[in-house]
Amino acid sequence: MIAQAVGMTKAGLYHHISGKQDLLYQILNHAMDELDRIVTAPPVRLIEDPEERLRQLMRLQIQGEISHGLAFVVLFSEINHLAPAQQKEIRGRIKEHHALIRETLRELAEGERLRNLDVNIATMHIMNAMTGVARWKYQDFASDEENLVHETVAYTMAALLKPEP
Amino acid sequence: MIAQAVGMTKAGLYHHISGKQDLLYQILNHAMDELDRIVTAPPVRLIEDPEERLRQLMRLQIQGEISHGLAFVVLFSEINHLAPAQQKEIRGRIKEHHALIRETLRELAEGERLRNLDVNIATMHIMNAMTGVARWKYQDFASDEENLVHETVAYTMAALLKPEP
Repeated sequence: MIAQAVGMTKAGLYHHISGKQDLLYQILNHAMDELDRIVTAPPVRLIEDPEERLRQLMRLQIQGEISHGLAFVVLFSEINHLAPAQQKEIRGRIKEHHALIRETLRELAEGERLRNLDVNIATMHIMNAMTGVARWKYQDFASDEENLVHETVAYTMAALLKPEP
Repeated sequence: MIAQAVGMTKAGLYHHISGKQDLLYQILNHAMDELDRIVTAPPVRLIEDPEERLRQLMRLQIQGEISHGLAFVVLFSEINHLAPAQQKEIRGRIKEHHALIRETLRELAEGERLRNLDVNIATMHIMNAMTGVARWKYQDFASDEENLVHETVAYTMAALLKPEP
């Protein structure tokens, strides 16, 4: 009935959907490969100070999205369109990325530098801010890449860290 | 050639795409109607204190996304799929919503309550945080709606406002 409604044969619709799913799956896997390579590889992961680690992670991810091939992260929000097994795999990879951010926030909390906040929700806000930026790259205010990176890191750090005494 | 690749006739593909565009256009217009009705109608717009106005706007929009029919705002990121004239109209409506937030930030700046930040970029981060939340509604930590609203408003306010002296 859906096939009829969109003017396709049933076989054509299956072919169409599974072709689109495979393409999206490959793109999202590629985006995760690049995220691992550019952002979460050892140089960042091994930065000792958690605040500096988070700042550097954000800088690299945002710069990557604007000009170094990480723009595909905007497609993370399409993940529901994948087949279940594909969803599971990509969600697992995204969770690893979240875990790095969450652990960094926990370290900040242990050092009494984090505000009194929900670490899981804050992690989602940080990720959401970074993937959001990838969608703004064609807007006027995003033309100054350095400023956009600076403002986004400063905004996030102000949300997270206790004010300096 | 695209029609062939996805297993459709050319006529079927045109029909498919324009049908999807019209549907998305109607959904996005509906989402904007609801946003106007629930969030940006006079009760919020007329709150005198800019900080309280912004807090109330965020609360209503997030609650709306979680449980009162504003979930369609997640589709704002699909706007590129609309026909050009449809895009222009929806973008115009979204811009009005941005303008309300931006004006509120300007009032906070005039009262010397805003951090030294880029008001355009901060407006996008606020909108992005609110539409992000609509995507998390099926995650564990989002099951406590009141907590999610509270945490998101507190996170955003900490990012925006100068610390209390």
